[in-house]
Amino acid sequence: MHKGRVEAFSDGVIAIIITIMVLELRAPHEPTIAALWPLAPVFGSYVLSFIYVGIYWNNHHHMFQLVRRVNGAVLWANLHLLFWLSLVPFVTNWMGENHLESAPAAIYGFVLLMCAVAYLILARTLERCEGANSALAAAIGNDRKGKISILIYLAGMALAFVGPWFGIACYVLVALIWLVPDRRIERNLAAHHAAGDQSE
Amino acid sequence: MHKGRVEAFSDGVIAIIITIMVLELRAPHEPTIAALWPLAPVFGSYVLSFIYVGIYWNNHHHMFQLVRRVNGAVLWANLHLLFWLSLVPFVTNWMGENHLESAPAAIYGFVLLMCAVAYLILARTLERCEGANSALAAAIGNDRKGKISILIYLAGMALAFVGPWFGIACYVLVALIWLVPDRRIERNLAAHHAAGDQSE
Amino acid sequence: MHKGRVEAFSDGVIAIIITIMVLELRAPHEPTIAALWPLAPVFGSYVLSFIYVGIYWNNHHHMFQLVRRVNGAVLWANLHLLFWLSLVPFVTNWMGENHLESAPAAIYGFVLLMCAVAYLILARTLERCEGANSALAAAIGNDRKGKISILIYLAGMALAFVGPWFGIACYVLVALIWLVPDRRIERNLAAHHAAGDQSE
Amino acid sequence: MHKGRVEAFSDGVIAIIITIMVLELRAPHEPTIAALWPLAPVFGSYVLSFIYVGIYWNNHHHMFQLVRRVNGAVLWANLHLLFWLSLVPFVTNWMGENHLESAPAAIYGFVLLMCAVAYLILARTLERCEGANSALAAAIGNDRKGKISILIYLAGMALAFVGPWFGIACYVLVALIWLVPDRRIERNLAAHHAAGDQSE
Repeated sequence: MHKGRVEAFSDGVIAIIITIMVLELRAPHEPTIAALWPLAPVFGSYVLSFIYVGIYWNNHHHMFQLVRRVNGAVLWANLHLLFWLSLVPFVTNWMGENHLESAPAAIYGFVLLMCAVAYLILARTLERCEGANSALAAAIGNDRKGKISILIYLAGMALAFVGPWFGIACYVLVALIWLVPDRRIERNLAAHHAAGDQSE
Repeated sequence: MHKGRVEAFSDGVIAIIITIMVLELRAPHEPTIAALWPLAPVFGSYVLSFIYVGIYWNNHHHMFQLVRRVNGAVLWANLHLLFWLSLVPFVTNWMGENHLESAPAAIYGFVLLMCAVAYLILARTLERCEGANSALAAAIGNDRKGKISILIYLAGMALAFVGPWFGIACYVLVALIWLVPDRRIERNLAAHHAAGDQSE
Repeated sequence: MHKGRVEAFSDGVIAIIITIMVLELRAPHEPTIAALWPLAPVFGSYVLSFIYVGIYWNNHHHMFQLVRRVNGAVLWANLHLLFWLSLVPFVTNWMGENHLESAPAAIYGFVLLMCAVAYLILARTLERCEGANSALAAAIGNDRKGKISILIYLAGMALAFVGPWFGIACYVLVALIWLVPDRRIERNLAAHHAAGDQSE
Repeated sequence: MHKGRVEAFSDGVIAIIITIMVLELRAPHEPTIAALWPLAPVFGSYVLSFIYVGIYWNNHHHMFQLVRRVNGAVLWANLHLLFWLSLVPFVTNWMGENHLESAPAAIYGFVLLMCAVAYLILARTLERCEGANSALAAAIGNDRKGKISILIYLAGMALAFVGPWFGIACYVLVALIWLVPDRRIERNLAAHHAAGDQSE
């Protein structure tokens, strides 16, 4: 099976997720700059979620560069990731509307955690489909960054009950870790192309 | 006519259908975990519908792998399927909001039934376009799974009036039947490629 | 300039237009079959608009099959068509919510009229870009169907003030005229391919 | 890295942005032509924003024609542009709902300004990725049009506090400057293809 439509469908779903979040940013009734202030928490949540969904799209894009074929298991692992990503607008809105209280901040972290777990499952499923000696398997390696992220999300969820800002600080930290694009795959992709050129 | 744009348009519509359902999952006003409980039926309906739309996308993807060309009849059979799929968010929302009453559960089954009928019509239209000896016709065969699903949907619609959970159990059963990817087509695709390789 | 991204962008916009209309089909609060009846006009408007947007997508798809390159003028003629199509959800909703009154029915016709005019402009712009001797110019010809549609829309808008149903009957008539796929282009495409095969 | 998915994702997000704005154009409750008048400012804002998003799509399309590869920095520069574009529906709605008051008109200009800045950053990032001697670098040149636009936006934001219409006049002026497709790139693309043909 070709990977083209899986990429196209994922692009479509992620494009919608990243865009519909802005629908929750409702225009204030007063035509004054001051009327924008109460929107700050909703706007802040939107920015954080936009960056997170952007990170997932970037990493999805990087990972699928090394994929040569997909099977039924990959389709479902991919839909599973899209399911958790589709809940991001919901938790973003809940966290933003409540001016950053503990429970919404913890649940926001839970959805991020499940996205990370779903991404790990997708990576493993692709690895099984491509083979242990594939360029993809070499590029993913032991996935230290993914595992550390999961630990920080868990810490963030617990800390959200101490104070919501502690939780959010954890989520911002993970975003910063990932904002750097995945050099492993870019390096591997370059090495792979070089090897391919030599063997031709 | 090439199949590329039909696939792209279907991917777009299905991506939107699967994503806008989450807009009905409105953030509660209370910032407590307990405030999420009343959302359970809406969330459950969302999960079931997400799986159903995912199944349709997967099967659509599988089926179009074997398609080589499309004609005007295929375009309309495909739009007919997308029409019934587009009603899934509406019935999902109605069923979820009413904490699973009989009428919404039966109408939910009716929309699933019409999706299944529309999928059957699309398969037959593609078969006519491809020819009776095509790889697609061989892969679809007599489509036992599709016909059994229709019977279970009809049973589910009737049982929903006995108790809504009986109806929903039927719909979950059909989803489970289809969650297994369509081996017929994967097998056929493999056989087809093997045959193509030999003839080259 | 390649036509690929123009097709992809148009597919995206049309997919969203055809799907967001269903958001106006709000789930009734009562969990009874009877509670669906008041939705009949909204549902009917939705079905008519779905068919119309489907027709535009099909014809757009057919027309772009014969296009080899696009220029800046084509991009804007295409955006102009998408603009009028984007107003279809608005007029569909207005017509449906008001149980088919005169003014909404006439304005619905006006938007359909402007879509038809925009489609004509797009066809002429593509023709100028492709050249008078192109396969596209031959396929479009004098576009009798397009011109007749415009006359019927004008009649429908006037008749909507006599009685909304007269107007709607006109719009249904145009939809029926177009539901038959554009044989001119399919014939021409076949002829074109045959000619291309001979010249190779 | 190939540019295909970046284009597809951008097309998806821009298609959604341009289309969801129409959701704010709510059908009036009265079924009379007169009931459409109060929608005039919302409609006018919609038309202006539709043209702006259309201009960005066209220019994005033109610019990526000359791009041969992308890297991580390009992905983020592109997401940064999409972020500011995603705020266009919000400011469009705010400006339209308030019948063109000073603060919303100024904030509308601010979002347009940030889109222009983000576009400049994207162009520079692509230039760095392609190299100073690339066709893209030659086509962008010193980007006079982009810099003049930024000055007019700043003037528009200040003038909006004198009278909202002065600000809007500035934004309309910039739209008119850009409505002419970017001849530099079309010319360069033609020259590039000609050069490519000669060297083959």
